[in-house]
Amino acid sequence: MLSWVDGRPATSLSLADRGLAYGDGLFETIAVRGGQPVLLDRHLARVGAGCKRLLINLDSAQLRGELLAFCAELQQGVAKLIVTRGDGQRGYAPSAGAPRRILQAGVMPAHPPQHAERGVHLFSCQARLAEQPLLAGLKHLNRLEQVLARAEWQDAEHAEGLMRDVSGRVIEGVFSNLFMVRDGVLSTPDLSRCGVAGVMRAELLEQAQSLGIICQVRDIELDELLTADEVFVCNSLYGIWPVRELQGRHWSVGPLTRKLQAIARHLLDC
Amino acid sequence: MLSWVDGRPATSLSLADRGLAYGDGLFETIAVRGGQPVLLDRHLARVGAGCKRLLINLDSAQLRGELLAFCAELQQGVAKLIVTRGDGQRGYAPSAGAPRRILQAGVMPAHPPQHAERGVHLFSCQARLAEQPLLAGLKHLNRLEQVLARAEWQDAEHAEGLMRDVSGRVIEGVFSNLFMVRDGVLSTPDLSRCGVAGVMRAELLEQAQSLGIICQVRDIELDELLTADEVFVCNSLYGIWPVRELQGRHWSVGPLTRKLQAIARHLLDC
Repeated sequence: MLSWVDGRPATSLSLADRGLAYGDGLFETIAVRGGQPVLLDRHLARVGAGCKRLLINLDSAQLRGELLAFCAELQQGVAKLIVTRGDGQRGYAPSAGAPRRILQAGVMPAHPPQHAERGVHLFSCQARLAEQPLLAGLKHLNRLEQVLARAEWQDAEHAEGLMRDVSGRVIEGVFSNLFMVRDGVLSTPDLSRCGVAGVMRAELLEQAQSLGIICQVRDIELDELLTADEVFVCNSLYGIWPVRELQGRHWSVGPLTRKLQAIARHLLDC
Repeated sequence: MLSWVDGRPATSLSLADRGLAYGDGLFETIAVRGGQPVLLDRHLARVGAGCKRLLINLDSAQLRGELLAFCAELQQGVAKLIVTRGDGQRGYAPSAGAPRRILQAGVMPAHPPQHAERGVHLFSCQARLAEQPLLAGLKHLNRLEQVLARAEWQDAEHAEGLMRDVSGRVIEGVFSNLFMVRDGVLSTPDLSRCGVAGVMRAELLEQAQSLGIICQVRDIELDELLTADEVFVCNSLYGIWPVRELQGRHWSVGPLTRKLQAIARHLLDC
């Protein structure tokens, strides 16, 4: 599989990289079709904003060039981008060196088509998300919470798991963002304490607003989610999966879910 | 510098390693003198317990053998051990493969001798530790909180920084554990919500108890810390540094600090 480090083909990484030592970096998982990265500007904006918050001195123009060249070579599939703070000496103090860019190609995950058509069952994860405003929203490399949450179920019946924060609020899926619809209003959890602010979430919020749909980004309790009219999850690879069941509550696929799903499908051409 | 991956000399790592992708692993920083790892059993016990909590299937006997051979070759300095879940496919679900062992040699950090003799100033970090009982105590690879905290000061006057949790409790230093003495009682913060449970902390607690000193592991508020008789920080490389100043409060080096410092010094022969 195609992989580049700092703009050149490579299959291995320096042991001194701070991404390994401390999870000191960020990542993006980007759909690639026809040699083009989907939602490129959103991915670049997010990794750029993340680097600012982590005080990583990223050259955005260089990264854009590398990403475009990589995707042109890949043509179809998934480009995973990792940006780390680069090599470091021992110790937590951020190094001054250039950040490292790692690009790895993958195939588009082969999910059963009924996930999108009929919807998915959500597993209720016991692992809770800690509240850390300094890191909230970022797609950083410190992902042990997601690893532990994803380890809670092995059955194929559950396509995704619901994660809540330590205070019990509904936040997101393990690898997805979450939306609900109630009385025609589209709501998604506020991610200022924890969670990953996905590019598909941002795109759907903007598209929904441009369609005149009232959108809310706010705290959502589990009880409220369970009484929603429609629930769906989304990410930048599979688009939208309606949620058909959570904790014994069943939903049919709703009209707003279908409308937004068509938009995501058009973006991803899937 | 000497470095091994999975028991063999190597200077680079597979890009598929989950330590890089998700910080999916643990580390130990081990003092080495005369070819022997200091506090070996405590380091092995901690990484073993950490692997159990992270569901990483570590072969402890193999790791012990590799560590002993590595330290014999290194003779003097610091052995940094990283255990990751090994290579993974895309996605958070834990892979079933063998965990990876990474050993990297370093020199013992050259701290000014007055840190140990006269004590250090503690910087008050603004970055707070999130409360995550699932990961608390572990020396895992998700260390962005420490990176951001250590980035808050550059002056040489502050040798360490004090970290508190999001509720304001005193927890630890950025790369040290913290103790205080009041009315002859030795106390150190409870680390069941956040923090790294250091091997030197564990060793000092056990040694202090065997000396008949009353030890408490409990929540400590900042106000209480500031009115302590003695305060010190510790880790497995430098032993003990008395704290001489924090937030304008000054301490002289106390008798219990000196007694425990002699014990740490004997262990580390420094």
